[in-house]
Amino acid sequence: MPEFRQNFATKEWVIIATERARRPDSFSHNPGERRNPPPFDPQCPFCPGNEEKTPAPVFQISQNGRWALRAVTNKFAALREDMDTQRSHVGLFLKAGGHGIAEVIIETPAHDLNPATMTPECFRNVVEAYRNRYNSISRQEKVELISVFRNHGPRAGTSLEHPHSQIIATPIVPPHIRDPIFQARVAYDTFGSCIYCEMLAEERRQKERVVMENDLFLAYCPFASRSPFETRIIPKVHHSSFGRIDDQEVTAFAQILQEVLKKIYIGLDNPDYNYIIRSAPVSESDVKHCHWYTVIAPRLTTPAGFEMGTGIFINVSYPEQCAQFLRDVKT
Amino acid sequence: MPEFRQNFATKEWVIIATERARRPDSFSHNPGERRNPPPFDPQCPFCPGNEEKTPAPVFQISQNGRWALRAVTNKFAALREDMDTQRSHVGLFLKAGGHGIAEVIIETPAHDLNPATMTPECFRNVVEAYRNRYNSISRQEKVELISVFRNHGPRAGTSLEHPHSQIIATPIVPPHIRDPIFQARVAYDTFGSCIYCEMLAEERRQKERVVMENDLFLAYCPFASRSPFETRIIPKVHHSSFGRIDDQEVTAFAQILQEVLKKIYIGLDNPDYNYIIRSAPVSESDVKHCHWYTVIAPRLTTPAGFEMGTGIFINVSYPEQCAQFLRDVKT
Repeated sequence: MPEFRQNFATKEWVIIATERARRPDSFSHNPGERRNPPPFDPQCPFCPGNEEKTPAPVFQISQNGRWALRAVTNKFAALREDMDTQRSHVGLFLKAGGHGIAEVIIETPAHDLNPATMTPECFRNVVEAYRNRYNSISRQEKVELISVFRNHGPRAGTSLEHPHSQIIATPIVPPHIRDPIFQARVAYDTFGSCIYCEMLAEERRQKERVVMENDLFLAYCPFASRSPFETRIIPKVHHSSFGRIDDQEVTAFAQILQEVLKKIYIGLDNPDYNYIIRSAPVSESDVKHCHWYTVIAPRLTTPAGFEMGTGIFINVSYPEQCAQFLRDVKT
Repeated sequence: MPEFRQNFATKEWVIIATERARRPDSFSHNPGERRNPPPFDPQCPFCPGNEEKTPAPVFQISQNGRWALRAVTNKFAALREDMDTQRSHVGLFLKAGGHGIAEVIIETPAHDLNPATMTPECFRNVVEAYRNRYNSISRQEKVELISVFRNHGPRAGTSLEHPHSQIIATPIVPPHIRDPIFQARVAYDTFGSCIYCEMLAEERRQKERVVMENDLFLAYCPFASRSPFETRIIPKVHHSSFGRIDDQEVTAFAQILQEVLKKIYIGLDNPDYNYIIRSAPVSESDVKHCHWYTVIAPRLTTPAGFEMGTGIFINVSYPEQCAQFLRDVKT
């Protein structure tokens, strides 16, 4: 029977469409679609030897005298640091300078790796770079919001094969972020607790949507998942801002994120996906009602006119079944 | 230079990313991707002769003793009319019965047509069916929101070739709809006018984003377009609800919508697209601060992690250039 489910934190609804429900194992790729990039591509701007094709690194991790990870300013950035944030009007309409910071994290010299296939040390470097860049960028005066994300494959919006993540910082907190924060504030004022801490505790109580956990993080398919295999990773220790995580949490976050990505890679045959670290705005880094988390969204189905028009997503899978499927994948 | 632009009505922001801006004519399809469906497909459930594969029509237009358009209940509906709207809790989480109405409008018996290639009479039938079904469904007691939309092509989320539109009615008004209505209410209380009427007047004053107009409707690429060639069609006469349009408006809306779709079909080589008629919730059908309109969104670029995380869309084209390109397409 179809049902509506409400996102506990944002109050958005999804439809679990059981009339067209698909079994979790029906989502794996046609093997023909799988990517097999070469270990080195002389044309790739991120491959070793082509360092002059990118700006000088703003952060780098070296091993054995060679770079192991590089963070650089995005040459094809949607926003630029040298723009101002000045508002001006075009008739009645408002615009602002395209100020922002856009960086690319080149995760490894190897062209053919991805988080599911790189070593744990290598992926810990990636998370270390996220934290370093997050905290460094957050000290820029105009920055209000910092988004760390990874696009994997063309259906997820990237054509670049070389393993990389991105960071975009904006001088604006948009309604899409502000409205859920308002909901979280209302919940805090009503119940005296962080709604994300409550959700985390409830998912641990109910267990059936938990994919895995370690000492410091929980990975689960949310009750109101918008799409098949949507998985969230949430810190057990309340932090509003991703930038606040300590060394132990960096290690534990890298471990659980890599493990979930491995389960997705193996269980679903390397699908395209996005993941996004959603952190509170910089000026709300220590509030009690926000709680950073990561959303992993494999791109297995296509949102259509209904989703665009209403924001209600039709999910053709049960989050409970997706979680069980991922729990059972051996890595 | 990149810039932020604010949606005048919803206060959402977009980034016009001029560093990677593309010329409007760079978006047309690779000809190899074009669809050439057959005029009749014996396997297609919507083709003549296969009427028993769909439920009995809830609305039909006949010509010369044959059906010219049929509206039927969606057999693979995400929501069902026989479900209730009862809320219940799963632990702390809220769910509701999957009540709703889902219909398919089979626009013509011909398998290979689409709005850009069908006759004006045929497309007027489609809009007539939209109005008929909208008003009929709006009389159902549990219905709060009715979405009329069309998905064209696989990138727009449909695998069915036969020309069809869809209607989904829900017993819920989600935050995605409610929040912009709240903004519109605030604007009304501040300025004493409908913010959509103001936007319409401003776009007519500025002219450069206007694609075309007729006596009753304006088609334009919004100042804060989220994606290349996003086009809106808005009625010049203030109506909160699509269901309120009269016969003259049905004709004029069909004319301008078909003409814009023809320009997109010809100018961009038949790209996949969604269009959505966004109408006020049923119980707000006659308010002064809402204003129905239609969004046409060709699927030419792929939203990625940043868009999912922030709701800020990066648009790699100038709406002004897209509008000029569409104005210049001869139909």
